[in-house]
Amino acid sequence: MSETRIPTGDGVIEAAGKIAAILPPTPLLPVEIGGVRCWAKAENLQPIGAFKIRGGWHRLSAMDEAERARGVVAVSSGNHAQGVAWAAKRLGIGATIVMPRDAPQVKLDNTRALGAEIVLYDRPGEDRDEVAARLIEERGGTLVHAFGDPWVIEGQGSAGIEIAEQLGEQPSRILACCGGGGLAAGLALACPDSAIHIVEPVGWDMVGRALAAGEIVQAGPDAPKTICDALQPTATKAINLGVLSGRAQTGLTVTDDEVRKAQGWAFANLRMVIEPGGAAALAAALAGKVPLDDRTVIMITGGNADPGAFAQTIADFG
Amino acid sequence: MSETRIPTGDGVIEAAGKIAAILPPTPLLPVEIGGVRCWAKAENLQPIGAFKIRGGWHRLSAMDEAERARGVVAVSSGNHAQGVAWAAKRLGIGATIVMPRDAPQVKLDNTRALGAEIVLYDRPGEDRDEVAARLIEERGGTLVHAFGDPWVIEGQGSAGIEIAEQLGEQPSRILACCGGGGLAAGLALACPDSAIHIVEPVGWDMVGRALAAGEIVQAGPDAPKTICDALQPTATKAINLGVLSGRAQTGLTVTDDEVRKAQGWAFANLRMVIEPGGAAALAAALAGKVPLDDRTVIMITGGNADPGAFAQTIADFG
Repeated sequence: MSETRIPTGDGVIEAAGKIAAILPPTPLLPVEIGGVRCWAKAENLQPIGAFKIRGGWHRLSAMDEAERARGVVAVSSGNHAQGVAWAAKRLGIGATIVMPRDAPQVKLDNTRALGAEIVLYDRPGEDRDEVAARLIEERGGTLVHAFGDPWVIEGQGSAGIEIAEQLGEQPSRILACCGGGGLAAGLALACPDSAIHIVEPVGWDMVGRALAAGEIVQAGPDAPKTICDALQPTATKAINLGVLSGRAQTGLTVTDDEVRKAQGWAFANLRMVIEPGGAAALAAALAGKVPLDDRTVIMITGGNADPGAFAQTIADFG
Repeated sequence: MSETRIPTGDGVIEAAGKIAAILPPTPLLPVEIGGVRCWAKAENLQPIGAFKIRGGWHRLSAMDEAERARGVVAVSSGNHAQGVAWAAKRLGIGATIVMPRDAPQVKLDNTRALGAEIVLYDRPGEDRDEVAARLIEERGGTLVHAFGDPWVIEGQGSAGIEIAEQLGEQPSRILACCGGGGLAAGLALACPDSAIHIVEPVGWDMVGRALAAGEIVQAGPDAPKTICDALQPTATKAINLGVLSGRAQTGLTVTDDEVRKAQGWAFANLRMVIEPGGAAALAAALAGKVPLDDRTVIMITGGNADPGAFAQTIADFG
């Protein structure tokens, strides 16, 4: 049962070994910000364009034959969808993904291209976890949660093992784009000596607020719009909160304009495509919201950008 | 004297050692084209956004104190300019760069930001080599040619040493974007067992034509326009022809539309920014102009794209 498993540092190391067997490490690129050389971990260069391939692979490859035969159900705004679909295709597992109707077209298209079945829901109004639970009741199968799952957390943490190998030591600090807190929790387990700074969109700091309150906080219906489609879960989960409590540095939030500026900066200076949610940590660094040093690592978490929106962003900020 | 030195495989290995001491290897990324998994060498992720940093560093770092004091003069449409300026800044050498007035603004800005002095010339009409020779006559200094220089050729070849290390063996073939033939010559020396396919813009296949004719061929005044600003030298040089004769596979040319389609494909599938000239080899691969296998490497040579043109390209092809 996934509910009784606790994500551990040993589990992260195991995940890193499994992932290294099928995927080359993503580059850790030198980057200079305000005269300080630090590092960018380019998870947008994963085959699916996001770190989510890690958790998807660790979770699905841990399933036994009977579980695989029943298939998986996932809920995702688009990158976890592709991570699960990629792993499912490779393992011959049927995958159904619950996605918001307003997910970027590129993410819907890529997920379909990987052979997954997509079930759409309306982001304001329907509870995506309830849609998934209903599907599982009807069809069977295993839920692969986007962040509130021990294997998924361990899988995402494998990025931290790679970083420590590439850097030759643990980072002083890691700036992580944060939605539900799966990546941040994995990194905290992978790099016990590193400070973990979570960066969330303004109004969608559900992990930061939960850590401050000591309990899960739900996004209200009045939560503002954000271009960071990958970073707007309605709440974190207890498993993430448990790992991050006392470990994560909170209070870093970024505006849409800061994110777009970071996307434009990366276009011109890193020659990489970063989607809005994948640029949140870089945006915080560029805006001077956190001190940087030569052992600081900025997570670039995704690059599945809508062409039209990206074109407008580089016209404005490139 | 640079004229009497001959570029060698040993020189390439020496260059690779010098470059590895200051720059991490660029990633060799898995890429799937038409169901075949091959590799992309992402030189657009170099700090200056192009492989030209290699030749610039190998050449300038080989200069003695007296040469360094006199400064360097380079001729470039923009990427060699940045490579030389980057190396010059790091070594405390004064650099003057002759650039075409119609060079992309991003390349002019980046070169200036690295502290180099820029002298502009008019692409049709003035001979850039003559402008550089006049400058050297007036001011002194060492010419660092963009491709017809033994150190520059060896420096560019260091990419091939990295590729062979990353792949664990020499590639079956390397597809290289080709302007004057500096990179192609370096790769031919670095990877003696690999086929070297040069890819040139339609109407600007000055290396291919020279190899076919057995002598240097000048671009005529009626040469067509190309968006590949980095791949339009008016002729190759004897030193490049000497290395490439009998080694390079020719006949691969790409149109502007094929190049733009490759840029759009890379945006969506590799999440990378590639400038037109840097996407020529990828364009040939995507257009099915050369057979691919799991030991084929496609050089992605530059990422200094004009934001406006790139926005239009991904709107059309992203």
